[in-house]
Amino acid sequence: MKLLIIGSGAAGLTAAQFARKTDRQAEITVLGDEHYGEYSKCGLPYVIGGLIPSFDDLIEFPMSWFQRFRIDLKSDTRVIDVDSETKTAKSISVEGGKEKERDYEYDALIIATGARSWIPEVKGACVDGARLREGVFTLRTMDDAKRILKKAEKGGRAMIVGSGLIGMEMAEALSLKGMETFVRLRTHVLTGMIDEDMAHVVQEAAEQRGVNFIPRSTVSEIGGEPEVEYVVLQNLDTGVESEHAVDLVVISAGTVAHVELAEKAKCRIGSAGGVVVDERCMTSVEGVYSAGDCTEYPDFVTGKPVMVGLGSIGVKQGRVAGVNAVGGKEKLARGVLNNRTTELFGLEISAVGPTMRELAKAGIEPVVGKSRGSTLPHYFPGGKPIIVKVMAEPQRGTILAAQIVGEEEVHQRINVFAAAVFEALTLDEFMRLETCYAPPAAPTLDCMTLAVDAASMKWKRR
Amino acid sequence: MKLLIIGSGAAGLTAAQFARKTDRQAEITVLGDEHYGEYSKCGLPYVIGGLIPSFDDLIEFPMSWFQRFRIDLKSDTRVIDVDSETKTAKSISVEGGKEKERDYEYDALIIATGARSWIPEVKGACVDGARLREGVFTLRTMDDAKRILKKAEKGGRAMIVGSGLIGMEMAEALSLKGMETFVRLRTHVLTGMIDEDMAHVVQEAAEQRGVNFIPRSTVSEIGGEPEVEYVVLQNLDTGVESEHAVDLVVISAGTVAHVELAEKAKCRIGSAGGVVVDERCMTSVEGVYSAGDCTEYPDFVTGKPVMVGLGSIGVKQGRVAGVNAVGGKEKLARGVLNNRTTELFGLEISAVGPTMRELAKAGIEPVVGKSRGSTLPHYFPGGKPIIVKVMAEPQRGTILAAQIVGEEEVHQRINVFAAAVFEALTLDEFMRLETCYAPPAAPTLDCMTLAVDAASMKWKRR
Repeated sequence: MKLLIIGSGAAGLTAAQFARKTDRQAEITVLGDEHYGEYSKCGLPYVIGGLIPSFDDLIEFPMSWFQRFRIDLKSDTRVIDVDSETKTAKSISVEGGKEKERDYEYDALIIATGARSWIPEVKGACVDGARLREGVFTLRTMDDAKRILKKAEKGGRAMIVGSGLIGMEMAEALSLKGMETFVRLRTHVLTGMIDEDMAHVVQEAAEQRGVNFIPRSTVSEIGGEPEVEYVVLQNLDTGVESEHAVDLVVISAGTVAHVELAEKAKCRIGSAGGVVVDERCMTSVEGVYSAGDCTEYPDFVTGKPVMVGLGSIGVKQGRVAGVNAVGGKEKLARGVLNNRTTELFGLEISAVGPTMRELAKAGIEPVVGKSRGSTLPHYFPGGKPIIVKVMAEPQRGTILAAQIVGEEEVHQRINVFAAAVFEALTLDEFMRLETCYAPPAAPTLDCMTLAVDAASMKWKRR
Repeated sequence: MKLLIIGSGAAGLTAAQFARKTDRQAEITVLGDEHYGEYSKCGLPYVIGGLIPSFDDLIEFPMSWFQRFRIDLKSDTRVIDVDSETKTAKSISVEGGKEKERDYEYDALIIATGARSWIPEVKGACVDGARLREGVFTLRTMDDAKRILKKAEKGGRAMIVGSGLIGMEMAEALSLKGMETFVRLRTHVLTGMIDEDMAHVVQEAAEQRGVNFIPRSTVSEIGGEPEVEYVVLQNLDTGVESEHAVDLVVISAGTVAHVELAEKAKCRIGSAGGVVVDERCMTSVEGVYSAGDCTEYPDFVTGKPVMVGLGSIGVKQGRVAGVNAVGGKEKLARGVLNNRTTELFGLEISAVGPTMRELAKAGIEPVVGKSRGSTLPHYFPGGKPIIVKVMAEPQRGTILAAQIVGEEEVHQRINVFAAAVFEALTLDEFMRLETCYAPPAAPTLDCMTLAVDAASMKWKRR
């Protein structure tokens, strides 16, 4: 049994690991176009910001790991074609400075090619029609991060184009690094993650720590010779343009799945732009699996296909793909919950399920409950403010989504809601769920329960 | 509508609060035998230990609260009889130094009389056949705690008889207070809460902070005139006795429900020793409800009746009793999860569902998975050790119970398992549940998932 995995990120190597656990005999080869083994992409902003001392710390699977699991990693290897008829992948690798072409035959294939940063059409962003202008970066790989860090160390002003997860993590990292940091904002921060009312709290915290937001704006031009010197922003309402002197630009305006090889392998690409996979992580082509950021999968709540953009999901898919590819049996859940979290500017921010905007798009007008409380009983010292928002389906009162922002104890609370969404718990059922209580741990009526109670009262009055 | 509530603890006053929310007109009277309004009993050890500055801080409902909700609190009022035929309760209250008898008529009654500490038959524990010897205490009320604190402030040696939740919280409080602290241990610490393998970690942490354990022992005598001076312990295996000089003894060997009034009201008392209530919190007598530590209720997992000994459950019952007593409609879950937590000696300790011993008693030999990991990915600084144990039903693989011990992020993880037990999630389903991931928040494969995975692998091999 020859298993070939294209992509040496979290999904690809988790697939390799679980394929090996399932089949001690299989020949497992991983082709990766980077120079490194597997490292944590999500950790990159923290090395730039200085919280993690070195890029080497991010390496999750050292070479000894590959030996132990007998996984043949070919790094610096770019796959240029896949033929699912002959079950062959054609690659180019760089060895001793020379490019070498090589074919790999397989019995089962896992495509885990990930995604790249999307670069909007902005005048002057690229030079020579392709390469980003010097001093303009995206953050996706370790090499990207190394270049950003080198530039950031010279100080100056940074402009973040995009205020999503990576944009905000970079805003924090660069301001920790001592750069004067600006973020161009369209509507509110973290639009894909939380609603405007919750985002407000995050934006305020960022502002208190010195980040500057330029609201309601879009980038119309980037310029400077040879390095970036300015960015022109245009106000979305007034159309007025303003020029901002900058030394570094990070574009984090979204991602595009790497589906080119999947297309060559004749795998179906779905409406969200990713490789379509089933519960076994198999594509439309028998024996070809796919996992991670290059795939799309139904949203658990709305049923609509969404891009898989979370490491946690990539790892789950990698496991399922790896096990099934070598003849084992594992299944994904019927949809992704998009249980997502981060820490920014002293706040923990977590969410599960669709945002209000995504629910509206799916035609759902949820019942909403919100609670502002403390992580501890009022009488116990050290409790921190926490805001919980919960959304429920209006007919049956089923919990569909939740968002939490607070200074501590946020992450695991979102996991409680993840379990609730996963099991389609109703507001009333959640009210009956015991949450743990002790003075140094949590109040008798937890902030989660209070938010659900608020929603439940509205739901009964509806 | 006249609602009478006997007991001004968390259950009684939560009942009062939700009765008022449900019925704006009801006459609500609460009879409490203490001098204070409602305060947090669970907070008492933390005032003794000095973490909470004053007993006044524990007051949860000040007098203004009673006025706002129009709840008539009669404190210092002891109920001596209840007649469910004539719907009357007879009470004695102390007013101006004089005892006064008074009858209260009701349409609905809620019995929330709580529990008292159980005092084992030990030679010399009591004097005059009833009163505890001077310097020997139980901890149940604010007055108990005030007396203990006064005595502890003189320093010396403390002996804790009992190593359950309150015993261990007192061991920590008294050692924080500077007392040399001894705990008599039968088998392992926190037997009602966690298994021996998990308890080990807690005992070690306690020992590191200077608490002394006297293993495999029972108390055979307490003596001293007029104040306690010594305790004689007997080794359970060898029978050998040893005398220990002490200045203070805390007996925390369990509790006994106050069911005397419920008995007078003709309510059924169950096999666990508590007032039997249904999902509406109603007793066997129509119109008479009961809530909190005086009740028993089926264990969610084993179905066997257990005493309700947690504030969080008392509050849930109080709410249900209060709403139903005035004609509203609320239901309890079909059993108690006993989702319990504490913090001791720098550790967070949480558990949900029966312990291994309780499962064995119910004839269940679970599949067990355990994981020792970190709260954060290995590359992110500041992660803390955490141990997760999960128990599953051997036929279907349903998650029945979990225990977690670690330095942080334990409490809310047990709530995730509480949701899993509540919804009878199988190990495989839990594996499909997304947990949140971000480098500063949690690993891609959370320690919960790893423990479940370990159990799942055993389950498949069984």
